[in-house]
Order: sequence, then C-alpha cells, then structure tokens
Amino acid sequence: MSVTYPLGFKVAAGTAGLKPSGKSDLMLIVRDPSAASAFAAVFTANQIVGAPITIGREQRFKHLRGQLRTPRAILVNAGNSNAATGEKGIADARACMEAVAGLVKCAGEEVVVSSTGIIGRPLPVDKILAKLSELAGSLARGDDADASAAAAIMTTDLVPKAARREIATGEGKVRIGAVAKGSGMVAPRLDSPAHAPTPSATMLAFITTDASIGSRDLQLLLEDACSGSFNRISVDNHPSCSDMVVCLASGKSGVRVEKGTAEWTAFADAFIDLCRELSELVVTDGEGATRVFRVSVKGAASDTDAERIAREVVNSPLVKCAIHGRDPNWGRIVTAAGNAGVRFDPSITSLAIGSVEVYHAGIPVVAALGDPRLAEAMAGKRVECLLTVGSGPGSSWMLGCDLSKDYVAINADYTT
Amino acid sequence: MSVTYPLGFKVAAGTAGLKPSGKSDLMLIVRDPSAASAFAAVFTANQIVGAPITIGREQRFKHLRGQLRTPRAILVNAGNSNAATGEKGIADARACMEAVAGLVKCAGEEVVVSSTGIIGRPLPVDKILAKLSELAGSLARGDDADASAAAAIMTTDLVPKAARREIATGEGKVRIGAVAKGSGMVAPRLDSPAHAPTPSATMLAFITTDASIGSRDLQLLLEDACSGSFNRISVDNHPSCSDMVVCLASGKSGVRVEKGTAEWTAFADAFIDLCRELSELVVTDGEGATRVFRVSVKGAASDTDAERIAREVVNSPLVKCAIHGRDPNWGRIVTAAGNAGVRFDPSITSLAIGSVEVYHAGIPVVAALGDPRLAEAMAGKRVECLLTVGSGPGSSWMLGCDLSKDYVAINADYTT
Repeated sequence: MSVTYPLGFKVAAGTAGLKPSGKSDLMLIVRDPSAASAFAAVFTANQIVGAPITIGREQRFKHLRGQLRTPRAILVNAGNSNAATGEKGIADARACMEAVAGLVKCAGEEVVVSSTGIIGRPLPVDKILAKLSELAGSLARGDDADASAAAAIMTTDLVPKAARREIATGEGKVRIGAVAKGSGMVAPRLDSPAHAPTPSATMLAFITTDASIGSRDLQLLLEDACSGSFNRISVDNHPSCSDMVVCLASGKSGVRVEKGTAEWTAFADAFIDLCRELSELVVTDGEGATRVFRVSVKGAASDTDAERIAREVVNSPLVKCAIHGRDPNWGRIVTAAGNAGVRFDPSITSLAIGSVEVYHAGIPVVAALGDPRLAEAMAGKRVECLLTVGSGPGSSWMLGCDLSKDYVAINADYTT
Repeated sequence: MSVTYPLGFKVAAGTAGLKPSGKSDLMLIVRDPSAASAFAAVFTANQIVGAPITIGREQRFKHLRGQLRTPRAILVNAGNSNAATGEKGIADARACMEAVAGLVKCAGEEVVVSSTGIIGRPLPVDKILAKLSELAGSLARGDDADASAAAAIMTTDLVPKAARREIATGEGKVRIGAVAKGSGMVAPRLDSPAHAPTPSATMLAFITTDASIGSRDLQLLLEDACSGSFNRISVDNHPSCSDMVVCLASGKSGVRVEKGTAEWTAFADAFIDLCRELSELVVTDGEGATRVFRVSVKGAASDTDAERIAREVVNSPLVKCAIHGRDPNWGRIVTAAGNAGVRFDPSITSLAIGSVEVYHAGIPVVAALGDPRLAEAMAGKRVECLLTVGSGPGSSWMLGCDLSKDYVAINADYTT
C-alpha cells in the first residue's frame, strides 16, 4: 500500500485516452472529511508553468491564510501537461476541478490538479470529464488501488514509484504513504514559500498521512524534506513546468504531531526519509540511466557555493558519459567544478571516487588509476564522488544518473 | 593557406607520440622578428586551468604592461592538456618554452604554449623535447604546412579548421589567417581583461596577421570578436580548463591599422568575421553533431538576461535531443528558457522556429504543427529559433548542436 496506507484516503485510477500507448492516465485521491486535516505543497520555480501550478500556488496561498479549506481531492493526469496553454489551460483545469468537486461534494477550489506530459497542447478536457464519475465510483483502499494509482501517473517511467512509513508513538500509530513519478525533464527546484519567499522534469509526488498536524508545520516539514531529496536530484538539468509535491493529512490516526515533541521528531524523520526514498527511485529510473552517482562537495565557503559546484558536476554531459562508460576520467569532474562560477583554490582541492583519492591538493594521484578499488567504484550501481574544495564550512550534494544512448533515443522521438 | 597566409609567419607540425592514434600532435608557429609586432590573448574562465593558461595569463599581463616583448612562437600539443597537474605541470610547460626559445633565438617567456587532451596526466615532456629541433628545422609557409598545422592540433575533431581573410586598404593588403580546434568540452567563456577585469572543451584558435597594429587595440578587438563568436557556441556546456585564443601580428604588411580609420573598420570587420567562421566550424564539428541550431533571444531586460536564457535553451539535453530528432517539441524550448533564472512574463512570450511562429503571446499556435515549413525548418542543417520574451532592449544568441547517440559513444570510452 502507498497513498491509502494512511487512514482517511481512497484512490482510483482510470484511462481517459491521453497517452499514445493507451495505458491508464488518470488518478484521483480523495480524503475523508475531517477537522484535523492539513495541506502542504511545493511547486516548480520555472518561469513557464502549467495551469495546475498557477492554480496550486493560489490554493496554497489562500489555504495558508485560512481563506481555503484543506483540499479534499487530488486529480492527476498523465499524457498532457496543460502547460504553456494560456488562459484556456486555466479554464480547462478549473472545469476538471469543478467536475471532481461535484462528485466528492466539495468546492471546486478544494480540488488539487496536476498534469504531466506533452507541453503546449490543449488539455483533452472532454476525455477527462467523461471518465470522472467512473473514477469516483471506483475509489478504494488497498494494494491494488495503490498500484493502479502509481501506474497511472507514469510517462516515460519504467517502474512505478511508491513508498510508505509507519511511526509508532505513545499515542498510537501514524502512517505516511506516497506515489511519485519522474524519469525525464527531472531536476526539480521546488519553491519554499514558508521558509523564504523565493520561488523546476516533471517530477510529481503525492504524499498522504493520517497524522493530525498543523498545515504550517506540514508546509515547513515538506520544504525541509524537499531540500534534502527532490531538490538534490537531476536526470537532465531541465526543471519542468509541472513539478509539484503535494501532501494531504487526514488526521484520522488521532495522533497529534506537534513541534518539539518526540512524536514530531519521529514523524519528521520518517517523512524526510520517505521523500529521500522517492527521489532516489526517480533518479534511478532516469531516462536511459544504468547507474546513479552522487557528487558530495565539502570545504566550500557556503552551502550555496557547494551546491552550485555539485550541480555543475552532476549535470556535465562529459561527466555523465564517463560515469556511463565506467571511465575514471576525473579531470572532467574537477573541470566541471571549475565552471560553477564559484571561486576556489585548486591547490587545496581534492577528489575521491569511492574510497580512492585520485586528485590530492591540486596534484594527480597517478597511482590511483591502477587501483582495482577505483575500477570497482566506477562499476557499481552507485558511484560516490567526494570533492573537497577547501576548508570552508559549506557542503552539499547532488544525485545524478549517467547519460546513455537510450536517453537520446527516448528524447529524440518523443512528440510528433 | 591559413596561419602562414599573412606575411611574417612560418609553421611546422610533427608527431611526438602523445595521441593513442599515433597521429601528428605538435604544432609550432614562429613569427619573424619585427618592431611592429603585437600580441593578444584570451583564456578560459574555468577555475581549474592547464599550466599553459596560468603561464599565458602571466605573459599577457606582462606584455600589456611593457614587461614582455611580443611572443615569437606558439607551441601547441594535442593528446595531453597538462591540466590539473600542479607545479610540475608549470615546470614541464616551461621546459618546452625554453627549448623552443633556444631554437628560435628568443627568451623562454616569449614562447606561448597551449595543450589539449586528457586532463590530469603528466605531460610527456621528453617526447616533446625530442621532436622540437625537427620541428624548428621544418618551419615553412604554404598550403601544405598550414594543413599539417590544423591537423596536428585536432583531438576528437573530425575535420581540420582553418580560415583566412584579405583586406585591401589604400596602403596595401592586410592578411589574417587562423587555425582552430574543438569538438567536445566546448562551451568557451573566454575572459576579457581589457574590457573588464573579470576572469572553458577545449577550444583553441591561433590567429596570425601581418597588420601593423597596437597590442592594446588588438586585445580589445580580440575580446570583441570572441564575445560574438567563440563565446556564443556550446557543444556540451562544459568549458575546458585549456581554452585559449591567441593572436600574433607581424606588422609585415607595412599597413598601419589604427582605430578610427577606414583601415581599422575593414580590418576589424574581417577579424570578427573570421572568428565567427571558426566558431561555426567548431560547433558544426561538435562531437556527434548532425546539425546546429541557433537560439536568438530578444525583448529581455538586458543583453545579459537574454544571454542567460539563450544559454539555458541551447544547453538543455531535451532541446538538443528534439533538434536531433527533427521534433518541433517547442515546449522544451520555452520551459528551458523558464529555467534561466531570469524573470519574464510568459503571456508576452513568443517563439518562432524558422519562419513559423509556434507560440504566440503565451498561447500555442496549434495550426503551426501542421505547417510544412515547420518540418522543413527542423530538417535543415541549421535550425533557427527566435524567442521573444517581452519588449525590453536586451538581446543575445547562442549557437549549439544536437545531442546524438554518437556523442555518448565518443565520451563514454574516451580515456582509460
């Protein structure tokens, strides 16, 4: 079980005919009405966004200010992103929201919508509307319903993505469940409005929990969790117009989770851990990927500097190809780091791949290239690179995947 | 002819055994002594640089301040970049400079060195030194010598790159010649110290001219030329540690080219045009490339904003794959633009591919997808994309190439 593992949620999946493959493409999550409900969401920082992002930001804004009740439902379609579609896209999304609202008995604004797929094509609203009552009629809990849900939101994903956690507290059990999708156009930079009023594949994740938690706390927790998970992954350095992570809490466990308590610590740890599991599922299933690699940077002047360096390395096509070819071509890694627009001193810069230091204080460790542990590290399903750029306090990391011929094949023939 | 087309230059090429292929790998350009000589150079902005870059920056610094005479020679090797090699790399480069100096009768500091190839391996100095007297003994002018020179500096390049211009002035003819290399690790961001005291493949270009010109004017002209040519291309968004463009003027035409004169305008135009030709040769020969595409951005708040947008689009793997697949998947273009970290209003944003507008003021032009001119534009050897992001004064452009399976093949098996 995943999204219906927590109490208070049902899910259904269906086929509206939005995917050329004819596979399932609609998912509807519905929350039981409850006073102890909560809502949190983060959205892409792309300047070009799908209609669901524009609407979702407004819903979050109103909800945080008490002007909107906690959403009752999440409707997700795959096959069409309803992005770069102007005002018509907004109207199309709202038509779907109203139709769901009529079926689950709530206000249209209490329905969250999410779309992923081809950009710049009118959403086939009629196809979606024609399927909604069937969807609402088949809402259910359990393994089968949850598995159908994870499958319906896939696009180029090869595997469905789901996770769950159970936290035992003195007051009883609390559960968290989630489904996610993402394979290409994946390099999320999700916003964090509660932390800072700042504002990217499509990477989608829908998280449910039966904790009784405040929306403000849930929003802060979601933002923290994303900064250590979804925002740390990149398949192709192209944040989507449709990325979103949404969390609904039903409160149905009856367990109050409040900051400063032991319950909070346990819940937050599990929540963050679940997001990290989902994000790793996404990058591992990156388009054409055969292995993942983590670039950890330490010794930078700031965490921001370290992140910029890690991001530059993890997105270099040359580094990604070397990872694909099991080639310990570490010169690509250090020169990619040198392109991050961050000043650091090469003479105190070192790089280790796996447990083998290949570059020490600006000097190549020539013997390293013959070390069998280096070949072993490059051949693993997960390659670990540790770049030390000085003695500053800043550190960060990014998790990427290799670049293969399959990535090109998948993306050179996607649309028309 | 290319580098020996201008009067006052000779060139030779040879094989020191630095390339696994066993092909030629050394080039030596020597300038005849002349009081009317001039020197200009620009280098990579990467934080990790090859020894030749460190030395070259120092040569430029001293030369601009009158502390160093105009270099007499340029020694280039392919097969080893002498980068990330620490102090030993510097000493190795200086050993080569001294050896050339002894042969052409100048000071060691009057020899410019340039290296391209694998990063982080000791330069095989002995192999190079053993070939230098043969090289110095075979210096020559003419088609054969110039063709050998262009071939010797190639790494993964499929074609040698050379260009020349002749400018007729009232005082007589002035000639410019050049050889260049670059195929992968190409996305130069060359510095411009004369314009601003700011500080990446390897992209190399060596330009000769017999104009009589001041070094300060030549440096400014070179920087201007690079900003409209080499800095506008990207194969793989990974500026090298070894990028450099060097220009030597012999003065041997006897024609004085000074700012504000008709000669200057003609010379500058020809110089800039030659750099553009060379840069287009490089990106056209990008690793695995089957076509190039230009992303022009206008209506931005500033040229800098426009450049950031153009750069983000031209480097998106998803856009590059769409270009490879002749797929007018313009949603990838506009969403890549949205990731540039530049604020713009999607509702006044439009995109044309070739002569066909596919996105107008935030709304898809649905009929465009059926326009045969769109398919024709996508199938060309050069695809033109014009993105209008508002009504601001800022504009820029970038020239990129498609991402093919061959790029992956070339780069997944390069080193070890």
